[in-house]
Formats: sequence, structure tokens, C-alpha cells
Amino acid sequence: MEVLIDHAHCERKAAGAAVQLMFRYLCEPGLGEVLSPLAREELEHFEQVLALLKARGRYLEPLPSPGYGAMLAKQVRRGEPERMLDSFLVAGLIEARSHERMALLAEHSPDSALRGLYGALLKSEARHFGLYWMLCNERYPRDVIVLRLNALAAAEVEALKGELQDPGDVRMHSVGVDA
Amino acid sequence: MEVLIDHAHCERKAAGAAVQLMFRYLCEPGLGEVLSPLAREELEHFEQVLALLKARGRYLEPLPSPGYGAMLAKQVRRGEPERMLDSFLVAGLIEARSHERMALLAEHSPDSALRGLYGALLKSEARHFGLYWMLCNERYPRDVIVLRLNALAAAEVEALKGELQDPGDVRMHSVGVDA
Repeated sequence: MEVLIDHAHCERKAAGAAVQLMFRYLCEPGLGEVLSPLAREELEHFEQVLALLKARGRYLEPLPSPGYGAMLAKQVRRGEPERMLDSFLVAGLIEARSHERMALLAEHSPDSALRGLYGALLKSEARHFGLYWMLCNERYPRDVIVLRLNALAAAEVEALKGELQDPGDVRMHSVGVDA
Repeated sequence: MEVLIDHAHCERKAAGAAVQLMFRYLCEPGLGEVLSPLAREELEHFEQVLALLKARGRYLEPLPSPGYGAMLAKQVRRGEPERMLDSFLVAGLIEARSHERMALLAEHSPDSALRGLYGALLKSEARHFGLYWMLCNERYPRDVIVLRLNALAAAEVEALKGELQDPGDVRMHSVGVDA
């Protein structure tokens, strides 16, 4: 059940991130029309997870933040245009990792309802990294993006390692899920 | 065209307000399943207005905040449970006022595309005040709600009066729209 609560938090945080980026760069052409539907999709996933939680007699519960997202957020450089690039790449990396974890859960969860839910969410989650990549691609030279993505991906691996403090605390963004 | 830009800002602010309330009271049962679909609907309206703006060769532009929302936000009391009640009522009042203004635009705008858009949005906007009212009703005694709603409605009228500085600056939440 904790996996579901963690997942609900992940979806609402992903929606919040898309809304936050959309608000920060509101007048940047080509952004709102991508980030707003993405935020809607994440909210819809949030509602699906919440409905399953409720069907099982539970609700959202406070969950200490796993630190993964905060560690990645720290990598975002302050000045523009670096901040926008880093923000898109970090959001994209989190989406890619979520997709990877959901694919594992869709296949290996002992809970058939969860396997069904994750299977259904996978397809749209798979598109999200692509959307953030496209937003970068429209605005930055390819070599600049790739160089920064590599650096951030390395930082992401470190952030995941940092999560392996308690192997019993399995979270969407810990190394525990597929350990 | 400025009406459209103002409207796009209103929709994204309404979505932001719903997301913000949802995040603040995340573990409050019965909230996420109401506020998340509401936020999605506002985002969808935002996208519709943005599409119309783009079709006319424009995009979102920074618009000085009309002060209306900020003045209402100031009415929200700090401590709980007053803060939650006031937040719902203020959000509901803004929705109700938006609905009123959209109804006027749906009927009287000289622009047929705008009349069509506002006509289409009206129905779901009409439900939003009701949703916030229901959220209050489930949590607070009726007389407490009504008393506070009256006080906030009076403050809202004052906030609208404050907007009548430049009658040329017609905004969704100014007295100018129907003046």
C-alpha cells in the first residue's frame, strides 16, 4: 500500500513541477501548450491512484520526501538560460526514472490491480521524457543539451545511491524498487 | 485581444489556486478528488484560450496583476480551521465572479469567436463555485459558512471598486466589464 501512497505523491509532484515551470516561463511561446496538457495528465494519474487507495480504505498520508527530487533540484543552475535547460532536463530525468520503475511494477508487482494500473499509466508516462527533451531541443543546441544531460544523469545516479539507506523503505525513486 | 490574454491568466491562476489548495491540504480526505479534476478543467480552459490567442498571432503577455485576487487573498485568516474555510470561499467567489463576467461576454462580446468560447466554458465554470461551496459544507456548520461568505462577499465588492481606476483597462475582474 505504501507504494501507492508514494506513487500518488509522485504524480502530484510531477503535476506541480509542470505547473510551476509553466508559470515561471508563462510568456515563453510553445511552453504552455505542452506543459498544461502534461500537468493535466499527471493530475489524472494522481486521481487514478487516489481512487485505488480509497477503494482499499486508505487515503494520502504524509510521507517524508525521499530526498531524490531535492538533490536533483539542487543541480539546477540559477541564471538563465541555464536554469530553463536544467529544469527541463531534471523534470525529464525524473519522468524517465518513473517510467522505468513503473514498467518494473507493471511486470513484477504481486498485486494484480497494481500491475493493471501501472500498465495503463506506462504509455503516457513514456511520452513525458520526450516532451521535456523536445522543449530543450527547440531552444538549445544539441551538444549543449547532451553534455548537460550526461552531467545531470550522473548526479541522478548519485541521488539514487543516497536513497539506499533503508532497503525496507521501497520508493518509486529509490534503488530499492528494482534491488 | 487583451480580454483573451487576461482570461488566459485568470484560467491559469484558477488552476494554480486549486493545485495549491490540494497540496496544502493533501491528506484531507475528500479534497484531492475534487480539486484535481477542477484544476484539470481550468488548465483545459487555459489551453483553449491560448489556442485562440495563437490563432490570432498572439501569445501570453505579462499583464500587471489587477489587485483583485491579492486583495481577496488578504482576507484569508491565518489559523486553521479558518484558513481552509476562507480559502475555499475566496476561490469560490472568484469562480462565481468569473462566471458572471463570462456570461456577459458570451452574450455581448462583439467578437463571435469569443462569444462561442465563453458560451462553451460557461457551463463548467458554473459548477466551480458549487464545488468550493460543497467542500465548505462538508466541513463547517452552515451558519459559520454563510456569515463568513457574506463578509468576504462585501470585501469582494470593495476589491472590485478598487479596480475602477482606469475604465479603459477592462479586465475579467474589474467593474469595467459590465460597466
